[in-house]
Amino acid sequence: MAVGLQAPAGVLPVAGIRIGTAALGGREKPRDDLTVMEIAPGSNCAAVFTRNALCAAPVLVARQHMGTARPRYLLVNAGNANAGTGGPGFEDAVACCRVVAGSAGCETPEVLPFSTGVIGERLDVARFEAAVPAALAALDADHWAAAAAAIGTTDTVAKATSRRFEIGDRECVVTGIAKGSGMIRPDMATMLAFVATDATLAPGVLQHCMQRAVDESFNCITVDGDTSTNDSCIVVATGASGAPVIDDVDEAGCEIFYEALREVCQWLARAIVRDGEGATKFVTVEVVGGRSGDECRAVAYTIAHSPLVKTALFASDANWGRILAAVGRAGVHDLDIERVRIEVGGVLIAEGGCRAESYREEDGDAAFAGEEILIRVALGRGSRSARVWTCDFSYDYVRINAEYRS
Amino acid sequence: MAVGLQAPAGVLPVAGIRIGTAALGGREKPRDDLTVMEIAPGSNCAAVFTRNALCAAPVLVARQHMGTARPRYLLVNAGNANAGTGGPGFEDAVACCRVVAGSAGCETPEVLPFSTGVIGERLDVARFEAAVPAALAALDADHWAAAAAAIGTTDTVAKATSRRFEIGDRECVVTGIAKGSGMIRPDMATMLAFVATDATLAPGVLQHCMQRAVDESFNCITVDGDTSTNDSCIVVATGASGAPVIDDVDEAGCEIFYEALREVCQWLARAIVRDGEGATKFVTVEVVGGRSGDECRAVAYTIAHSPLVKTALFASDANWGRILAAVGRAGVHDLDIERVRIEVGGVLIAEGGCRAESYREEDGDAAFAGEEILIRVALGRGSRSARVWTCDFSYDYVRINAEYRS
Repeated sequence: MAVGLQAPAGVLPVAGIRIGTAALGGREKPRDDLTVMEIAPGSNCAAVFTRNALCAAPVLVARQHMGTARPRYLLVNAGNANAGTGGPGFEDAVACCRVVAGSAGCETPEVLPFSTGVIGERLDVARFEAAVPAALAALDADHWAAAAAAIGTTDTVAKATSRRFEIGDRECVVTGIAKGSGMIRPDMATMLAFVATDATLAPGVLQHCMQRAVDESFNCITVDGDTSTNDSCIVVATGASGAPVIDDVDEAGCEIFYEALREVCQWLARAIVRDGEGATKFVTVEVVGGRSGDECRAVAYTIAHSPLVKTALFASDANWGRILAAVGRAGVHDLDIERVRIEVGGVLIAEGGCRAESYREEDGDAAFAGEEILIRVALGRGSRSARVWTCDFSYDYVRINAEYRS
Repeated sequence: MAVGLQAPAGVLPVAGIRIGTAALGGREKPRDDLTVMEIAPGSNCAAVFTRNALCAAPVLVARQHMGTARPRYLLVNAGNANAGTGGPGFEDAVACCRVVAGSAGCETPEVLPFSTGVIGERLDVARFEAAVPAALAALDADHWAAAAAAIGTTDTVAKATSRRFEIGDRECVVTGIAKGSGMIRPDMATMLAFVATDATLAPGVLQHCMQRAVDESFNCITVDGDTSTNDSCIVVATGASGAPVIDDVDEAGCEIFYEALREVCQWLARAIVRDGEGATKFVTVEVVGGRSGDECRAVAYTIAHSPLVKTALFASDANWGRILAAVGRAGVHDLDIERVRIEVGGVLIAEGGCRAESYREEDGDAAFAGEEILIRVALGRGSRSARVWTCDFSYDYVRINAEYRS
């Protein structure tokens, strides 16, 4: 029951990228859960990984491999995170890369591994030996949607989108897929995102654009540092469009590419929230008028993480006092609650530390009734702002997470 | 369905304290929800209030009144928090104190108001005018249990306990009552605690003992600074036992009193967690071997607040990977996850960044199956420790909070 999210349509292939999926086997309901993405030689890659001190084995291996070679293959399995598996888990991840290298005819460090699923279980490398050749045999430029489905775990809708843009009269494309943490905060499970473009970008420019885009998208649905053990985001630029190389962040082309990349990443980030476990509402929390971006983010996250606010949203209950109380406890130094204004769906609800005089309960009820809700908090003490996307908290959230391993 | 918590029994009166309760009226199911506590002249009081920037009106008034007079009456209403009510709410709280002062024959600043319940609604002062005389007429030394029930909101069991101790051959008593946030984190609703002793304590000593006891009890079930709009804890020392005055924190008597006070506060704090909304498990999180108390607390709270850990506890699912991942993202600088050890109910589950070799799934299942669960995390990098009490996260939590105003 993802909120306003449809199955992928119109996803564009990216020249220089081919994708194959296969089934590792052993599932009660068989489905493809192994994905191989082939990257044309000469492509550049940029990556952002989790900051959790408990790094999953594939993250450690992917970081190491990126330091020594240009990636030619991405290998993704869903169902087992290969996290909390220590040295043996590291060896398993390397062994899986070796399987791809052997079948595809490349070096092991040219393969990056990604895993998502249950923490603490060993991978079954033998299953990779059987499935990887099938995935390689299935490689095709049009398999983005299939890959979006194969990398999912508790996701209910596959997440994929594309944007077109022009660099030097050449039509280019950027396409991305993601799997949600399947939940409200990506820190509590894995978020994986794979994005590719056929534009031509120098490695430094690509990394720069990617970090900016991630900050404006995936990092707006998680707390700084609160990432899961496996969170990873990869952007590949194949250059196969033949568009002129973008090798400076001040070039006009860089901004054009960045805008397209940002749109893809924001769409995917919002899709993850829309498909949050048990989500029935899609909520945007905007905080303006702060002295710093940090304090705006602190307020936004305190609201977005409050189980009391989230359950009120689930109930479509205009319990604005819980929002005001969350603002009050967000730890903003020297906050004057009398200057705070709260609007929900454009309805002014609270100001001066209490209910707005103009506020009528029926307006609040209407504002909370929709599937898409905008909570806007003005702190009245500066000019900085922040925005966070989140969802509500329902019975189904508890059910899904209580029964995850059952 | 409070976890291992029975209705109050054997609660001892405190010489110098009388309590009366009455009904403010207007409830679907009538019950007493107004409490007046009479304090003998010459008693000393110490208090700790919420640090939320959105302070409820009664907190502002109580602070102001304590600065100008010695309290003679505490006035508590349940059902309406009088928070987020601005200047009019402040006037209402003062008016309620004036009602008590008028009926009881004292000065208005000698009355401290306390409120708990829904945020953002005005108090109906006329109801206080009708109910306060009834509460005063009912004053009795033996009404502690009745008061424990009257101050509750979503609490399912009244919370009251007593301890005896001796100061200079005089038998003394300390008795306390509390209402829970009715929830997992006291920051999300109101916690009120009222404690009294007939021992004789100088104001500074009383405040010192109280702060220590609160840090070891109520502050172990909440995040520093994450208190609600109304959280308040009051300790009264009447001196009516005739025991010699304790006027120095280095006196032997001070430690004796402190121990009794701490026991009462810890019992009440644990009772609040046991009666957490929807709680089916009582969980102690112990973190040892840290470099500082702060980093131990950060780890303990990250585990205790994780919805993923809480839903796994609800499901009695030995999903230890979620605990390990929570340790990893707690923000401990330079944490070596390889040195971390996790035990649940005495069973070593994880070490060296992965599942312990000795670990058997059936032992984990047994450890997670009980109603009372001890999670112990050793960080292996120092000698500091911290302890937090929490509960699990169930369907009922969502139901209670989604329907609170319905």
